Amino acid sequence: MSELTVDITASLDGYVAGPSPSLEDPLGVGGERLHEWLFGLASFRKQHGMEGGVVSDDDAVSKEMAGAGATIMGRKMFSGGAGPWESDPNANGWWGDEPPFHTPVFVLTHHERDDLVLGETRFVFVTDGIESALAHARTAAGGERVAIGGGADVIQQYLKAGLIDELRLHVVPLLLGGGTRLFDGPGPELRVTRVLSSDAATHLTYRPVKEA
Amino acid sequence: MSELTVDITASLDGYVAGPSPSLEDPLGVGGERLHEWLFGLASFRKQHGMEGGVVSDDDAVSKEMAGAGATIMGRKMFSGGAGPWESDPNANGWWGDEPPFHTPVFVLTHHERDDLVLGETRFVFVTDGIESALAHARTAAGGERVAIGGGADVIQQYLKAGLIDELRLHVVPLLLGGGTRLFDGPGPELRVTRVLSSDAATHLTYRPVKEA
Repeated sequence: MSELTVDITASLDGYVAGPSPSLEDPLGVGGERLHEWLFGLASFRKQHGMEGGVVSDDDAVSKEMAGAGATIMGRKMFSGGAGPWESDPNANGWWGDEPPFHTPVFVLTHHERDDLVLGETRFVFVTDGIESALAHARTAAGGERVAIGGGADVIQQYLKAGLIDELRLHVVPLLLGGGTRLFDGPGPELRVTRVLSSDAATHLTYRPVKEA
Repeated sequence: MSELTVDITASLDGYVAGPSPSLEDPLGVGGERLHEWLFGLASFRKQHGMEGGVVSDDDAVSKEMAGAGATIMGRKMFSGGAGPWESDPNANGWWGDEPPFHTPVFVLTHHERDDLVLGETRFVFVTDGIESALAHARTAAGGERVAIGGGADVIQQYLKAGLIDELRLHVVPLLLGGGTRLFDGPGPELRVTRVLSSDAATHLTYRPVKEA
């Protein structure tokens, strides 16, 4: 069965977004600084249709992040903090015409909606819970791994349910001082399986300790 | 001038103590697990008057932690969550007759008290603030570094004041799910200067970015 992985960038003080996120500023105040470690990397640029860029350990990590066969995300991560689409049924979130996924994305929501295709990415809206979304994503991924794209609340739900196989935490040396916490409750026993670090980010990989 | 350093162990979700700390259970529910990475190490055992133990990367880190010339701590860290000593002027905190410091300890408090000597450790009670405590500790340390022993509130005060030279964070692969947060507000720009990891803990060293 394909693995379920999370790649998430957090500040040293554990925030995945700064204070006051909005449609205009979906990562909150100061939150865009979380992802600066990615912007110059060759694999990140390629994923976003640009050439060139830096090849480094950070780039290798970024390449791994991009290799999922399907993605699961929360409704707010799709629509950027705006309300549900009943008020604007054509709302396409904030991913633009060429979302960077290129593989199916399953959006967890309480509001039904037909599939939406943008560029090479199909968004499928799932209203019957996290296990259903995971089952659909696994089918779509065809043996490749399934990634959880976020946000923090979705990661927490999968973590508490014991469904995550690998948590890859990218810690940037930044104290945001407020915002959305990555962790907010109990989770499984973990073990660290890899540590890589650069000036820009420290990459910590964890896997749950499975009972023998 | 001698450097001011912090060594602090936190769970992956950023807690330095579990929920409901008390005099009987000063690290809160589940909090003693934070420090298990230390217990078997040769340098930790030596510091606590025991022989033997493991020599490893973790042990080298533990040895560094123990090498300060003076320590600063908060009143609650001294007295283990009990009230101030007016109600029991002989209260000696919860460090026992042979505290593991062997160098002067400066306790931040609003309540004056004469020095207290336990074994080889002198506790000095400072009532005029964190900068005064640091000045006294630097004098006592005689050129050696000064360590902040905790708790989180004291670390936060020194961090916000820009007085910390090195933050050494020991992250254990554990989700406590609640308790006392290490970080709770803004701090200086940081850069990572060293990363070491074992199965038991990941050791992250940060230094503030100083203006040129």
